[in-house]
Amino acid sequence: MPITLEDVRASAQRLKGVAVRTPVLQVDGPQRAPARQLFIKCENLQRAGAFKFRGAYNRLAQLTEAERAAGIVAFSSGNHAQGVALAARLLNIAATIVMPADASRMKLEETKAFGADVVLYDRATQSREAIAASLARERGGATLVPPYDDYLVMAGQGTAALELVEAIPDLDALLVPVGGGGLLAGTAVAAKGVRPDLRIYGVEPAGANDWALSWAAAEPVSVDAPETIADGLRTTSPGELTWPIVRALAEGILTVSDGEIRHAMRFLLERVKVVAEPSGAVGVAAALSSKLSVHASKIGIIISGGNVDLDRLCALLSDNENVL
Amino acid sequence: MPITLEDVRASAQRLKGVAVRTPVLQVDGPQRAPARQLFIKCENLQRAGAFKFRGAYNRLAQLTEAERAAGIVAFSSGNHAQGVALAARLLNIAATIVMPADASRMKLEETKAFGADVVLYDRATQSREAIAASLARERGGATLVPPYDDYLVMAGQGTAALELVEAIPDLDALLVPVGGGGLLAGTAVAAKGVRPDLRIYGVEPAGANDWALSWAAAEPVSVDAPETIADGLRTTSPGELTWPIVRALAEGILTVSDGEIRHAMRFLLERVKVVAEPSGAVGVAAALSSKLSVHASKIGIIISGGNVDLDRLCALLSDNENVL
Repeated sequence: MPITLEDVRASAQRLKGVAVRTPVLQVDGPQRAPARQLFIKCENLQRAGAFKFRGAYNRLAQLTEAERAAGIVAFSSGNHAQGVALAARLLNIAATIVMPADASRMKLEETKAFGADVVLYDRATQSREAIAASLARERGGATLVPPYDDYLVMAGQGTAALELVEAIPDLDALLVPVGGGGLLAGTAVAAKGVRPDLRIYGVEPAGANDWALSWAAAEPVSVDAPETIADGLRTTSPGELTWPIVRALAEGILTVSDGEIRHAMRFLLERVKVVAEPSGAVGVAAALSSKLSVHASKIGIIISGGNVDLDRLCALLSDNENVL
Repeated sequence: MPITLEDVRASAQRLKGVAVRTPVLQVDGPQRAPARQLFIKCENLQRAGAFKFRGAYNRLAQLTEAERAAGIVAFSSGNHAQGVALAARLLNIAATIVMPADASRMKLEETKAFGADVVLYDRATQSREAIAASLARERGGATLVPPYDDYLVMAGQGTAALELVEAIPDLDALLVPVGGGGLLAGTAVAAKGVRPDLRIYGVEPAGANDWALSWAAAEPVSVDAPETIADGLRTTSPGELTWPIVRALAEGILTVSDGEIRHAMRFLLERVKVVAEPSGAVGVAAALSSKLSVHASKIGIIISGGNVDLDRLCALLSDNENVL
């Protein structure tokens, strides 16, 4: 394996006192059948609202002095933007974040509030590659921070699962959202390192099932135009570096419908009292809709993030089925 | 004082492994001015969704065998119902909870789900006193569990503040919702016991300002027909047993408008990613609208609960000003 449990442990040291050791919540009541207990690791309560801060900080903290002085660049419509912006602010590194002009209002505002230089582009008429080339010319020498295909980023993301298996040492299974695969790869390395018998599953929306198809084909497969409310998981293929790690260590991939995701978001708000964005809720969706065919009485679940505009949140909770 | 720090510490021992040691959350971003840091103690993430579980369990755990066998009765339209029902279930005590027929759907459902016998009454045509008398006849010997005017209940509620001052030892001020006064009295005893210099403020809605008026009059005062979205704080006068404790130990009472409460609920959802019910958000409302005139850079705030129907939550977040 290109990264090991020791890399995740070293990342945890680096993040100590910087990232929040997020709580693991449980639920009482009818949903908590004695036969099946859910342990919910709340990365939506992480700084900048998602696990992304862990990987971003872990990556940026290891730049050389010269690299720090030259600044960093990241592309993101989502949580990676905020995570990188906050990590850069804490480390006094100038950050340029390239975001689509139609990104969520909250994500744009927070990224700017963390002091990043936000460059907007039009998804319809401009290409990210052209923007990247032009930025490279203007700001030569800046380091590009990838959202998942980077070993330091993956090792940083794995610290969430490390905390979870330390807090609940006897889990039977672990459910983790998968988009690019950074969180899942880091989780697999950390959790399997501590608990080789723990079964780890990636969870993705049925409308963006590139990982499930790849798993069935036993090699990376691409999908066209994924469609799901879980905007953070609309990837078209597994990451180049994340795929082999996940394939070697995980048990499999589960898929959930958008309706199951909305039900899980509602459950989290009503019973757990936390806000999950659609992508963040897929693990809970899989557990509530019993997608796990094997016997597992203690199920760990990572909620990856909670960044969702309130108008959209309320629209998703209403009975209107036409929400994307 | 009729209760002391030692009573709160003994309650904390009793609640160990039973109540959740709820997280203390912070916020990054523009709202986190370096000059003023908020430390948010999330009792909305407590079992049964509110601090009420602490006091209820602390009270019920100290019933004699004979009292346990005779069962308990409680009256509540709100979080006290769920807290008592869950505590009774954990201690194998039969619970009868008297609730108004128009109580929130979620609160009714959860109270029943915890196994309590729910007796509904019509606020318009029936009196709680008549119900109580009839229940006393039917179920003679059952113990009535009061929501706040009880020293064991107050001592149990104080454990939340004890955890907060242990986690953040250098707070300058503490903001606590006040309705009947059980949480505030317990908090004052616990927090002043550990930190005699800590300034403690009760916060209530301007539309239910019985505590603020009482404070000004230096004696308990009653108000008529309180009107506010913070349904858990619609008390008409301070508690008989809570008032003298609060008066002796707290610094004063702050009031917030319903608009300020809604703003705070939105802030908590968007930035902290947690659901607070209107009553639970008054402390944050006071901090965000700078109601604290004294200098305080590190402010502790207790969110008392998160039990709110999602339809109502979304209505409160919308621009409709006519929500009660």
